Amino acid sequence: MKAVGICGSDVHFLKTLRCADFVVKQPMVIGHECAGIIEEVGSEVKHLVPGDRVALEPGISCWRCNVCKKGRYNLCPEMKFFATPPVHGSLANQVVHPADLCFKLPENVSLEEGAMCEPLSVGVHACRRANIGPETNILVMGAGPIGLVTLLAARAFGAPRIIIVDVDDYRLSVAKDLGADGIVKVSTNIQDIPEEVLLIHKAMGAGVDVTFDCAGFNKTMSTALSATRPGGKVCLVGMGHNEMTVPLTPAAAREVDVIGVFRYTNTWPLCLEFLRSGKIDVKPLITHRFGFSQREVEEAFETSARGGSAIKVMFNL
Amino acid sequence: MKAVGICGSDVHFLKTLRCADFVVKQPMVIGHECAGIIEEVGSEVKHLVPGDRVALEPGISCWRCNVCKKGRYNLCPEMKFFATPPVHGSLANQVVHPADLCFKLPENVSLEEGAMCEPLSVGVHACRRANIGPETNILVMGAGPIGLVTLLAARAFGAPRIIIVDVDDYRLSVAKDLGADGIVKVSTNIQDIPEEVLLIHKAMGAGVDVTFDCAGFNKTMSTALSATRPGGKVCLVGMGHNEMTVPLTPAAAREVDVIGVFRYTNTWPLCLEFLRSGKIDVKPLITHRFGFSQREVEEAFETSARGGSAIKVMFNL
Amino acid sequence: MKAVGICGSDVHFLKTLRCADFVVKQPMVIGHECAGIIEEVGSEVKHLVPGDRVALEPGISCWRCNVCKKGRYNLCPEMKFFATPPVHGSLANQVVHPADLCFKLPENVSLEEGAMCEPLSVGVHACRRANIGPETNILVMGAGPIGLVTLLAARAFGAPRIIIVDVDDYRLSVAKDLGADGIVKVSTNIQDIPEEVLLIHKAMGAGVDVTFDCAGFNKTMSTALSATRPGGKVCLVGMGHNEMTVPLTPAAAREVDVIGVFRYTNTWPLCLEFLRSGKIDVKPLITHRFGFSQREVEEAFETSARGGSAIKVMFNL
Amino acid sequence: MKAVGICGSDVHFLKTLRCADFVVKQPMVIGHECAGIIEEVGSEVKHLVPGDRVALEPGISCWRCNVCKKGRYNLCPEMKFFATPPVHGSLANQVVHPADLCFKLPENVSLEEGAMCEPLSVGVHACRRANIGPETNILVMGAGPIGLVTLLAARAFGAPRIIIVDVDDYRLSVAKDLGADGIVKVSTNIQDIPEEVLLIHKAMGAGVDVTFDCAGFNKTMSTALSATRPGGKVCLVGMGHNEMTVPLTPAAAREVDVIGVFRYTNTWPLCLEFLRSGKIDVKPLITHRFGFSQREVEEAFETSARGGSAIKVMFNL
Repeated sequence: MKAVGICGSDVHFLKTLRCADFVVKQPMVIGHECAGIIEEVGSEVKHLVPGDRVALEPGISCWRCNVCKKGRYNLCPEMKFFATPPVHGSLANQVVHPADLCFKLPENVSLEEGAMCEPLSVGVHACRRANIGPETNILVMGAGPIGLVTLLAARAFGAPRIIIVDVDDYRLSVAKDLGADGIVKVSTNIQDIPEEVLLIHKAMGAGVDVTFDCAGFNKTMSTALSATRPGGKVCLVGMGHNEMTVPLTPAAAREVDVIGVFRYTNTWPLCLEFLRSGKIDVKPLITHRFGFSQREVEEAFETSARGGSAIKVMFNL
Repeated sequence: MKAVGICGSDVHFLKTLRCADFVVKQPMVIGHECAGIIEEVGSEVKHLVPGDRVALEPGISCWRCNVCKKGRYNLCPEMKFFATPPVHGSLANQVVHPADLCFKLPENVSLEEGAMCEPLSVGVHACRRANIGPETNILVMGAGPIGLVTLLAARAFGAPRIIIVDVDDYRLSVAKDLGADGIVKVSTNIQDIPEEVLLIHKAMGAGVDVTFDCAGFNKTMSTALSATRPGGKVCLVGMGHNEMTVPLTPAAAREVDVIGVFRYTNTWPLCLEFLRSGKIDVKPLITHRFGFSQREVEEAFETSARGGSAIKVMFNL
Repeated sequence: MKAVGICGSDVHFLKTLRCADFVVKQPMVIGHECAGIIEEVGSEVKHLVPGDRVALEPGISCWRCNVCKKGRYNLCPEMKFFATPPVHGSLANQVVHPADLCFKLPENVSLEEGAMCEPLSVGVHACRRANIGPETNILVMGAGPIGLVTLLAARAFGAPRIIIVDVDDYRLSVAKDLGADGIVKVSTNIQDIPEEVLLIHKAMGAGVDVTFDCAGFNKTMSTALSATRPGGKVCLVGMGHNEMTVPLTPAAAREVDVIGVFRYTNTWPLCLEFLRSGKIDVKPLITHRFGFSQREVEEAFETSARGGSAIKVMFNL
Repeated sequence: MKAVGICGSDVHFLKTLRCADFVVKQPMVIGHECAGIIEEVGSEVKHLVPGDRVALEPGISCWRCNVCKKGRYNLCPEMKFFATPPVHGSLANQVVHPADLCFKLPENVSLEEGAMCEPLSVGVHACRRANIGPETNILVMGAGPIGLVTLLAARAFGAPRIIIVDVDDYRLSVAKDLGADGIVKVSTNIQDIPEEVLLIHKAMGAGVDVTFDCAGFNKTMSTALSATRPGGKVCLVGMGHNEMTVPLTPAAAREVDVIGVFRYTNTWPLCLEFLRSGKIDVKPLITHRFGFSQREVEEAFETSARGGSAIKVMFNL
């Protein structure tokens, strides 16, 4: 293993020993955004040899159940996923992993960029589920790591116009630098929604076809449901608040569908092609890098937990 | 006009002068579930002659905007719809209506059944949007008029197993008579959801692929989101509470999509075929019939408003 | 193994040592439509125990390639399929097969019917690919075994009206008995197409939404392309002539799409549900039964090869 | 009317008084690729004023039939289309046309480019029907005007890799200049298909997901069917030979679907956005320009008919 990024869920597990419904009950290695170098391959593996640089898709599904057979293996009830208890993660020197989940990096893609395929995959899967293309004007709620990879993915899927919303000036400026067509700074006050929706529509200059809620608060979801045009879609990406109070009925009455997104299926080849061709550049997202000494490890997690100017914190092992 | 059914929205307008966001500001004829006999046709109309018995699709869209051109004309912002202010409804002796929205009744379909095409269309459109077929096990929340037409439509779309849920024994018994494979009586207490989901799953004996929430309460929608299998769909049919407090994030994390349904597009031919072939029998839904004297009109609306054993109240003019 | 049906491909292999592009180079067991009784299960198998009666899905795919991961595993380049050289078939006393491809029979489904899941799966997969439902009027070209299972599947998917075409009176009468809404006898003369299309349209009394060509001749495909309404689909089921001379351009100019069908993916649960619920009855298709003595085996293949009144020939071992 | 392009069908009508099944029986104005300046608008028209520069969508559908209501109005049996007998075309000083089919040009889009929306729409509609995106490697058969607009559209839809095939060096060099990732020169000899498919696969360096046959010969369609990967699509764009002799069965057995394309629906807004944003530049396709004198008109049609270096011949009125 050579490059491992820190995800919000890793920080959650470290601090609280749980994340969403998953609870850590015995010591568990964390980490699941990773790339490394092949040491050894099984006798039937033909597409990899020792020394190959690879990015790893972290989940191993059963391939025997109905959802796997239908191609929605991200929903497999038998899924074994890095750093989802009780399965160990990949922030380790070595891991054993199925060859078909190890994807050889193109020459011009670094190990760090390879590790970024994991968060980028979330954005790519969201774009696939919401069927993004050159006719889809997009609103992104939240300019955190997931909001930013969704922005990058949506652009690569051909979205003509992307507006991004956040409470934080720095994050909005990063989004702007990454290619957002417009940014809207909002408050955390739910009363401001009607006014902010007007600002969003003005920034878009057209209807909002798809909104990605990458924050998951009552306010972001309510804004998403209100801002999206009749017949459009709202896509809830990443983990938000469990219980939400939102204007679901008025949205449904405009046939605004709410699309759920959980992880991804078979996104690595596309992510690597985006990185190889330069359609997506994830390097600006990697804001902090650390080695693997005890001191650096602690500092890395603190940096990631602090947020602020830290978008993606990366270990180089 | 010969047969006109009373819809919940008619009762709302009558009692409160409003329904959802629509407000009545000047005297307005209500009614939009209707069938009648052609008196006169325009010179270019070829498929109808005076004397033909027809069912009427109540909404006239613009056919010039983007949503009309894409076939989602139910979302047309220029829609003129019977009894949606300020457009008059069809509870009248005569109406002028575009010929392509007048559908000739098959010989074995009565005028009353023709009027029932309107509520049935809501169920049919919901089944189309949720892509119901022989592989879709269905849960229906609510055994009111919309829940029951959705049950009938889902069966006609080939759903193998349909479980229906309500708080009312009488309505559940009607659902059972109409062909529900199982019924589950529930409370209005939100704490009972986990236990009731178990009862629903037991009644289904399999995963719930699609849930139609035909009630629109916090509790029904929360139950719907919890009971539906990973990768399934929840379809919100009819008008519910504006603001809902529901576990949207856990549902999204299982890629349970929430599909909105608003009215219908081009459902009359299919509804009439269902009635003609006997695949759907709407007659049991018509529980009360009235004439058009002052006294009877008042009694009809009171009967409809009371609910209870009244499912569909029909005027025969 | 207890029940094995004979497929046209088995007869081909037996007579010519080849079928389509597949060539038999060393002795090979044939047979792939089968059901039997479990003798032994692996230690991780939970859904089966010895003594269970099961139907077998005959193809083992790799679950590692892109098409498998997308859920189209029937197209897997590494597929190992019963009786497709060099893989042995299932006309044997025993076979070793993955547990997730063994489907337990419902109590009211016999082993023979279980074996019929294989041909029925072809019809089911065709209906899925062509998106058959209650709005799809269907034309079936050819009333051989594949045409007949497609008829049965289309009915179970809710097709309102099914017309079937053949050159043979006996097969048409079987189709009629199985529930075809209309039958049209045709010639093998290509000049008769225009007139026969008129007969088909008259029998349908409406537009043809989807045509299944289950014969694969120039004439059947030309008829299919001509008879299908603008925006409809023609589905080519089973193996036809390699090179076809057909009016493809005029069909494309009416946006009639040609859909290919190859085997199936994950159809056994649905087939067994159709058989269990009585929505489909395959028993009338089993016209001849044989034991497994040398004499009977020879007679069975001769009977199947002769065609005529033999639809499905079944071994009961 | 200010800019009108010449289409192959115009040349056909001029020379032979027919095109495909359409026969000219009385004098008819030709031309349907056009843009102009608004002189007068009806009283209900709000989005246009005299003086506006507009591109015209040439077909007027009925908006009353089933296909119109479903959004596939290109298939409307009552369609009135410029220069499709007996409807006059737009190679005229003035035409009367519905306002919703007149699309205002962005400031940076010229009238000539506006006229190019018509052929470009064919490519856009083909990309929509074949669902082109960042995961679709594309093969284009034929580098004529339709092949080239399809190339441009596919790129704008995000296709990562596009290979184009023709018999003509000049056209291939134009395709290369327009951004094709690879070009393959082929013969007209049908025996060369296997070898040419190898060249195509080598040029692609990956599977062919979608092939657009923009030529419509036996050879191009046979190559398309053979070159496309299992589960891919072949899209037949434009008018080819009526009767085709092609390996349809082997393609169907790999579930390669054949998608028909006829004209377009509601493509002008997207085309204008592509031109405005610079995602597509159609100017290199306009190789010859003529005025409207008798002499120039004759020369223009001769130039277009000659082909060779003439791709699109444009009248500036």
